[in-house]
Amino acid sequence: MTTITGVAVHDVRFPTSVSADGSDAMNKDADYSAAYVVLSTDDPSLSGFGFTFTIGRGNDLCVEAARQRALPLIGRDVEEIIGDLGAVYRELGADSQFRWLGPEKGVIHLALAAVMNAVWDLAARRAGKPLWRLLADMTPEQLVDVADLKYLSDALTREEAIAILRDAEPTREDRIAELERAGYPCYTTSAGWLGYSDDKLRRLCQEAVDAGYKHIKLKVGASLEDDIRRCRIAREVIGWDAKLMIDANQVWDVPEAIEWVQQLAQFQPLWIEEPTSPDDVLGHAAIRKAVHPIGVATGEHGMNRVLFKQLFQAEAIDFCQLDSARLGSVNEILAVYLMAKKFDVPVCPHAGGVGLCELVQHLSVFDYVAVSATLENRVTEFVDHLHEHFVDPCIVEDGAYRLPSAPGYSAEMYAETIETFRFPEGTYWQSEGASSPAHEYALVVGGER
Amino acid sequence: MTTITGVAVHDVRFPTSVSADGSDAMNKDADYSAAYVVLSTDDPSLSGFGFTFTIGRGNDLCVEAARQRALPLIGRDVEEIIGDLGAVYRELGADSQFRWLGPEKGVIHLALAAVMNAVWDLAARRAGKPLWRLLADMTPEQLVDVADLKYLSDALTREEAIAILRDAEPTREDRIAELERAGYPCYTTSAGWLGYSDDKLRRLCQEAVDAGYKHIKLKVGASLEDDIRRCRIAREVIGWDAKLMIDANQVWDVPEAIEWVQQLAQFQPLWIEEPTSPDDVLGHAAIRKAVHPIGVATGEHGMNRVLFKQLFQAEAIDFCQLDSARLGSVNEILAVYLMAKKFDVPVCPHAGGVGLCELVQHLSVFDYVAVSATLENRVTEFVDHLHEHFVDPCIVEDGAYRLPSAPGYSAEMYAETIETFRFPEGTYWQSEGASSPAHEYALVVGGER
Repeated sequence: MTTITGVAVHDVRFPTSVSADGSDAMNKDADYSAAYVVLSTDDPSLSGFGFTFTIGRGNDLCVEAARQRALPLIGRDVEEIIGDLGAVYRELGADSQFRWLGPEKGVIHLALAAVMNAVWDLAARRAGKPLWRLLADMTPEQLVDVADLKYLSDALTREEAIAILRDAEPTREDRIAELERAGYPCYTTSAGWLGYSDDKLRRLCQEAVDAGYKHIKLKVGASLEDDIRRCRIAREVIGWDAKLMIDANQVWDVPEAIEWVQQLAQFQPLWIEEPTSPDDVLGHAAIRKAVHPIGVATGEHGMNRVLFKQLFQAEAIDFCQLDSARLGSVNEILAVYLMAKKFDVPVCPHAGGVGLCELVQHLSVFDYVAVSATLENRVTEFVDHLHEHFVDPCIVEDGAYRLPSAPGYSAEMYAETIETFRFPEGTYWQSEGASSPAHEYALVVGGER
Repeated sequence: MTTITGVAVHDVRFPTSVSADGSDAMNKDADYSAAYVVLSTDDPSLSGFGFTFTIGRGNDLCVEAARQRALPLIGRDVEEIIGDLGAVYRELGADSQFRWLGPEKGVIHLALAAVMNAVWDLAARRAGKPLWRLLADMTPEQLVDVADLKYLSDALTREEAIAILRDAEPTREDRIAELERAGYPCYTTSAGWLGYSDDKLRRLCQEAVDAGYKHIKLKVGASLEDDIRRCRIAREVIGWDAKLMIDANQVWDVPEAIEWVQQLAQFQPLWIEEPTSPDDVLGHAAIRKAVHPIGVATGEHGMNRVLFKQLFQAEAIDFCQLDSARLGSVNEILAVYLMAKKFDVPVCPHAGGVGLCELVQHLSVFDYVAVSATLENRVTEFVDHLHEHFVDPCIVEDGAYRLPSAPGYSAEMYAETIETFRFPEGTYWQSEGASSPAHEYALVVGGER
């Protein structure tokens, strides 16, 4: 018997705000961070790694919440846990005192995501399979048993979920073979951060085209004049056959979103991403009607499956951008994929950040193999930052993710990374040259204790 | 000049789970708790007190989040802060790194509520007025300036908000005089907690009737058979002229809610409260259509004004139960009251917990005086627990809240209460007899550090 013997949660922060990587109309000084969970066992060769993603201050809250949420796992038999990954998810989620702080949203839910990501990583490592393969080897009934269908039965019944998975089951291996050959298509956001100069934008767009990308995304929403100029530069470089996406990161009210996007319609964007509050189902539906044929995309701040259910029911979105570290790991994400299939909405997961690309590659592959069975209108985000910190980093070639092959969920960071970027004790943060807006503020916060 | 010199946030927990006070179908072992904020100034006679409410574990997360959120207030001029209570709210809320952890929901937003509740308490004390009077003395323009209308303009414009307040302005003093005489009507939940025996239920219903209450609320949702028996007992005691409300605390899926409530329709409940996930706008709308003429009520877990906007737009609720410690204090609550008026939905605030009654009495009075100008279908929750810990406790007589008269937001607790119930250092929690499910678990959590 192998037993879970401990949980450690690390506050890992990278000083990305220094270079304006990740800057947009809402988030001007993001320091990409992770509340990083390590589940250890009494087998020295077996651990589980997982995390949630934040942009700096407050990462400490997620760390402490994840530590508390993971405690019930200590002392438990690994086989019992991974033998019923639905039961452990429900057990951790049912804690009514924590639930009060959401329910199923905010810090508490980010923490559940971090812990369950580590549990799924542990399960895949134990099975000796990459996560996507662990899932693709499960029967429709097994998959639906681990999915969180609570509050969804008015949109998707258990029987419908099983039927969706059964339809795709006979041809799973054909699609795996196809992905082994061609990879899963992705797009890049690295070119278009709002803090970049026009020259840098032009150069990065050209580099993206040269690297084989057919989709480019720009941040918009701070200044209409700037947005028009930047969209024009992007179209000059990428031409009109490539797809241009725009992303406002929630800065607009609904009427303002409609007006602004109509001013950018001349650049024929494929989608407007996060035009308004991520909670506003009816607002997204109104925007979608008004800006057609421009699509509406949202989901990186989609707090839980109940929100996605409503986005589907209200026909509010053209693209579902679920987040692998905000939803309650595979259990809740599975439910969103199944609803997306029923409502015929393509899922193009949010990535970037720290390690989100590493996670979503598994999810996109699984979706194609076992749920959606199509690549039509599907393209997964890729941002070329911080992959060097991961033991099993994602690999992108010719605008496509290569299939991950190592056991697990690709979530493990190097020990040296943790030592360097642990906040505030890590060697980077203790060094004299260290600086970032988050850093300075957070040291003040620490000093006040 | 008076300066804010410090912030202290205390983790205060009461062992309510021992007596099953507060037990319902979702929350079986609530230990009522508060993340309690004290803003001190260099004037020894002036402080601001505020809190958010939780039910036990995780209160520490709210405490730490509130501490960090309040830090930008230190060193600031009190007159500057209270001279523009919209600016300080927007400044604290705009922190983009914290925002990522919501946005505007969960721990981060509960913490904002706690801090801004203390700021509003400080403002009312400085003015020498109870909070309701501070608000009632503001002009329509001043009120709209402090209200958070971001993301609402598709439902309520600034001009509409001002017009609503102008309509009620000339007759404000008449309604204040009426409330001074009769109080603001309330109902009691103290009778109907799920953990109480039939005999205790019968006795408490009788006591409520004897005390002048015309509304009684029961918890339902764990067992249909039990619910039918308990509703029958309640009707036997209170008769058919009094109003009976039922509350399921989110336990059902949408189809299940409809079926269950139809089984209880024979008892003619005024409303079914929290039939399903608090995030499910479209689900509440579907339930409302199906169970008419039984009303649908929700809001104690309503995470922010964008959710309430949609509940109004979708005609999903008959009663709006906003929470004074979950929404972003008066700034966000004002916006919800204004929308409720426009959409003609009565607001019956959630109370109970720790100190929520103390807060909501001010809000209900202000709503009647300056916004809704009617008492029709309005009744504010009252639960007779824990008031003894407050320096200026609410007073209920003949089923109505008496108007608070002391300066502030009635949020201050006795110093002795803090010393006794601070977790885990307080004298109660260090005593040998101390016990509660939260206590035992939280000590384990602490021991693992």
